[in-house]
Amino acid sequence: MRQYETFELAIPGPVLSDHWAQADVQAAFTHGDTTVTVPGFYAGDGMYKIRFLPMEPGEYTWQVSGTVSAEGQEICVPATTHGPVHTQGRGFVYADGTPYHPFGTTIYALAHQPAELIDRTMETLSKAPFNKVRMCVYPKDYDFNKNEPPYYAFEKSEDGTWDTSRPCFAFWDAFEENLHRLDAMGIQVDLILFHPYDRWGFDGMGHDKDLVYLDYLTRRLAAFPNLWWSLANEHELTHRTMEEWYDIEQFVADHDPYGHPLSCHNIFNVWDANRPNTTHASIQSKDLTQLNRWITRFSGKPVIIDECAYEGNIEPFWGSITGQEMVRRFWMCVSQGVYCTHGETFYSDDDVLWWAKGGVLHGESPERIAFCRKIIESLPGQLEGTASFLQPALKLRDMDAAQREAALSQLPEMLRRLLLALIASPDAESFANSEIGWYGHIGTDVYLRFHSDRPIARDSIELPEDKTYTIRVLDTWNMTDEVVATGVSGKYTVPLPCRENMAVLAIAE
Amino acid sequence: MRQYETFELAIPGPVLSDHWAQADVQAAFTHGDTTVTVPGFYAGDGMYKIRFLPMEPGEYTWQVSGTVSAEGQEICVPATTHGPVHTQGRGFVYADGTPYHPFGTTIYALAHQPAELIDRTMETLSKAPFNKVRMCVYPKDYDFNKNEPPYYAFEKSEDGTWDTSRPCFAFWDAFEENLHRLDAMGIQVDLILFHPYDRWGFDGMGHDKDLVYLDYLTRRLAAFPNLWWSLANEHELTHRTMEEWYDIEQFVADHDPYGHPLSCHNIFNVWDANRPNTTHASIQSKDLTQLNRWITRFSGKPVIIDECAYEGNIEPFWGSITGQEMVRRFWMCVSQGVYCTHGETFYSDDDVLWWAKGGVLHGESPERIAFCRKIIESLPGQLEGTASFLQPALKLRDMDAAQREAALSQLPEMLRRLLLALIASPDAESFANSEIGWYGHIGTDVYLRFHSDRPIARDSIELPEDKTYTIRVLDTWNMTDEVVATGVSGKYTVPLPCRENMAVLAIAE
Repeated sequence: MRQYETFELAIPGPVLSDHWAQADVQAAFTHGDTTVTVPGFYAGDGMYKIRFLPMEPGEYTWQVSGTVSAEGQEICVPATTHGPVHTQGRGFVYADGTPYHPFGTTIYALAHQPAELIDRTMETLSKAPFNKVRMCVYPKDYDFNKNEPPYYAFEKSEDGTWDTSRPCFAFWDAFEENLHRLDAMGIQVDLILFHPYDRWGFDGMGHDKDLVYLDYLTRRLAAFPNLWWSLANEHELTHRTMEEWYDIEQFVADHDPYGHPLSCHNIFNVWDANRPNTTHASIQSKDLTQLNRWITRFSGKPVIIDECAYEGNIEPFWGSITGQEMVRRFWMCVSQGVYCTHGETFYSDDDVLWWAKGGVLHGESPERIAFCRKIIESLPGQLEGTASFLQPALKLRDMDAAQREAALSQLPEMLRRLLLALIASPDAESFANSEIGWYGHIGTDVYLRFHSDRPIARDSIELPEDKTYTIRVLDTWNMTDEVVATGVSGKYTVPLPCRENMAVLAIAE
Repeated sequence: MRQYETFELAIPGPVLSDHWAQADVQAAFTHGDTTVTVPGFYAGDGMYKIRFLPMEPGEYTWQVSGTVSAEGQEICVPATTHGPVHTQGRGFVYADGTPYHPFGTTIYALAHQPAELIDRTMETLSKAPFNKVRMCVYPKDYDFNKNEPPYYAFEKSEDGTWDTSRPCFAFWDAFEENLHRLDAMGIQVDLILFHPYDRWGFDGMGHDKDLVYLDYLTRRLAAFPNLWWSLANEHELTHRTMEEWYDIEQFVADHDPYGHPLSCHNIFNVWDANRPNTTHASIQSKDLTQLNRWITRFSGKPVIIDECAYEGNIEPFWGSITGQEMVRRFWMCVSQGVYCTHGETFYSDDDVLWWAKGGVLHGESPERIAFCRKIIESLPGQLEGTASFLQPALKLRDMDAAQREAALSQLPEMLRRLLLALIASPDAESFANSEIGWYGHIGTDVYLRFHSDRPIARDSIELPEDKTYTIRVLDTWNMTDEVVATGVSGKYTVPLPCRENMAVLAIAE
């Protein structure tokens, strides 16, 4: 047993010919004064397994009960890994306190591809900058996602419907192999539990069967250290009511003893990430001018733009942004302390598009995303920003006349008139969100100013007078990082090369 | 006297030493059964002038009355020009019925520059693609706009305030020379009557003086054929109430016998272009993802995005879009039957920025805007589009359950669910506006599909079966225009080169 790694007990017992999804088996793990009881699962061939994720080193005793019983003890040796990820404020950390900055990618149907394609995907991921993968449990039926998977999650009933009480062991064993391989590369799995793109009947089994599926799934997978729960891809398009979604959310939270990150992804109706069991916002939003909306709405939790469109050349507008635009979207997000997720959709002779099936990467963005990740991981904390110069001014709308007068009294006359014009506008939200500056900061220690596609000749910054700063100019596309000044305080003008994709980074010395 | 050209009567009379802004002089012009009476103005040195813009050829008699009197007759010869512009539906036409598509630029303080700089500006304009210029009557005080003008619109009172009753003749004579020179090049003048960027006191003279100024101005300028009224640049930032603005609007409309185009430009509070005296929307909107907002709000009138940010390299985000982005914004607009206005803001050693003062153009966009203009002018009508795939679906929100069911009943199940998800979203407007397609059409005669920065490999189009079409592929940046197919009906896939800035144009044969 090792801290932060899945510990598995496998105990032989009676062969089950039916109803094995919810086998009667559990184990109590005791460490010092604390006992955690976790359910086990039937793994086929008369084998019962219980998986546990020990969070502390030291001595554990365990006791299995139910259809099989056993007991024992283990010395849990200290971790050689960082452990599972959880949220902290608007960011994430590993269990050992190391910051984790998600730089994800999307391979929806990774698990439903032939073994050699999965191998190729893993090989690609081993060299890619991504430390999170969005992937589905169920197979996907959509453009470029038409292949029949080798296995299904369940056996079928005689009437042709899925018998969730009889999970398909071959499927789950193979599926888990992917999770292990990703974990070995330090990649978090943002596991999509439900999605609407279905021709097999997995979407629409009914709520009771959904819960049996989740019961078996959580028994098998909750103890994986690199697991995140994504309740759905585009939850609104599946056959479930919001009440069923909330029930699913509660069920998953109740059946996860470790508190893995939990989110739910939208098509148009952004899931309320302020719900207690939801740990962070996982948003589809292809228009980053709207970023301020999500930052302010979910100001207490991490925000990931998990779908911002994909680098590629296919016809749909969600699948044809340039590599430059993809990289910009990463920098737009990270400059505000928000995260972004990659995906790739280039036409391919073999019909293998990364976003669907994996394979190899063709785009120009991944190496630049690696550069972005390196910079962000080098910073001493979590950036914050509002994406909009004017968004804070919208608060003036909620003030009474006296409060407003007080708030405006110190401002120059023209700025005062400008803010009054803004709040008088029926389009105030739209204009406030549109006046964008991709400027973030970490207290007064770090200032990051991403200039996106603006080819400016200089950047006049104003730093606190009580610290000195090193100023670096980053070319986020050409991946250069140059110190242009040290010992800077107060006002300073940074010359820039009139190119797109530049950023200025000021770090307290 | 020539149709569509300013006819001027100059009649000597008493020298006025004071209060000459509202001289008592007018002329009645009679053509057939129609008599139009227009006010004249005092031009200094005892000279009284009356200007008239004849819209029909034939015989006119005229009769001057007031401080001076005279009468006579003229044969108005047929036009050699197209005449003044007016709106027609969502577009514009010249008086002779020729379509006019505005491709404007911005030179706010053109009239307040030294003569040699104005000459250089006119030389530049003579070779540029622009057929409209946004320019101010009053001088401008702003970044890059600091030079003292050679003249002011009025003489000063002894107390140092402006005496609007005594216009400065040298100013107005010089100012009009610019309008003549622009007219000779076929350039419309979108004349900005008021603006907030002032250090001289022209903004804040008070409403009564504003009206005296407008009275004199309309007497002198209303008969220019190439004149448009822009009540303001950023009306909300000046020292005027909305009631005063509405009064100004009425005054200008009442004092313009020719019905020149009339608009008012915003900072954040978009002027209601649906007002009867406002002929079109003149909008500042730097975020073209919001274009659908303005198209739908002002669906019965032309829309011009008169400020979409400027091509340049200066620090403010409104002055640092790339040439490519500027050209894209033109195509985004024109694809929807909307128009866009250029401006340029590059740092310059001589502190002459085009947007402020004129001079020469440095940017990459003008020649591409010329290409865009050539294409748009070649089309047989006014394009229309909504900029958003999903915007029409928002109407579902206003339907009752039965109507909605009827509207959705024929749709594929997934599309139906998608639209229901949209209208259930508190962010429906934002998402609908964000799902953008720059696709426009002229009935079933023309289909224009601008792909902006999406480097797609192909475009599958679906054309009516009852016509045949010629398909052209445009590279809007490299300015190529290639026929790729003729005789096409129904579904057709156009191969594209995976580059940005491509457009597909299908024209009925």
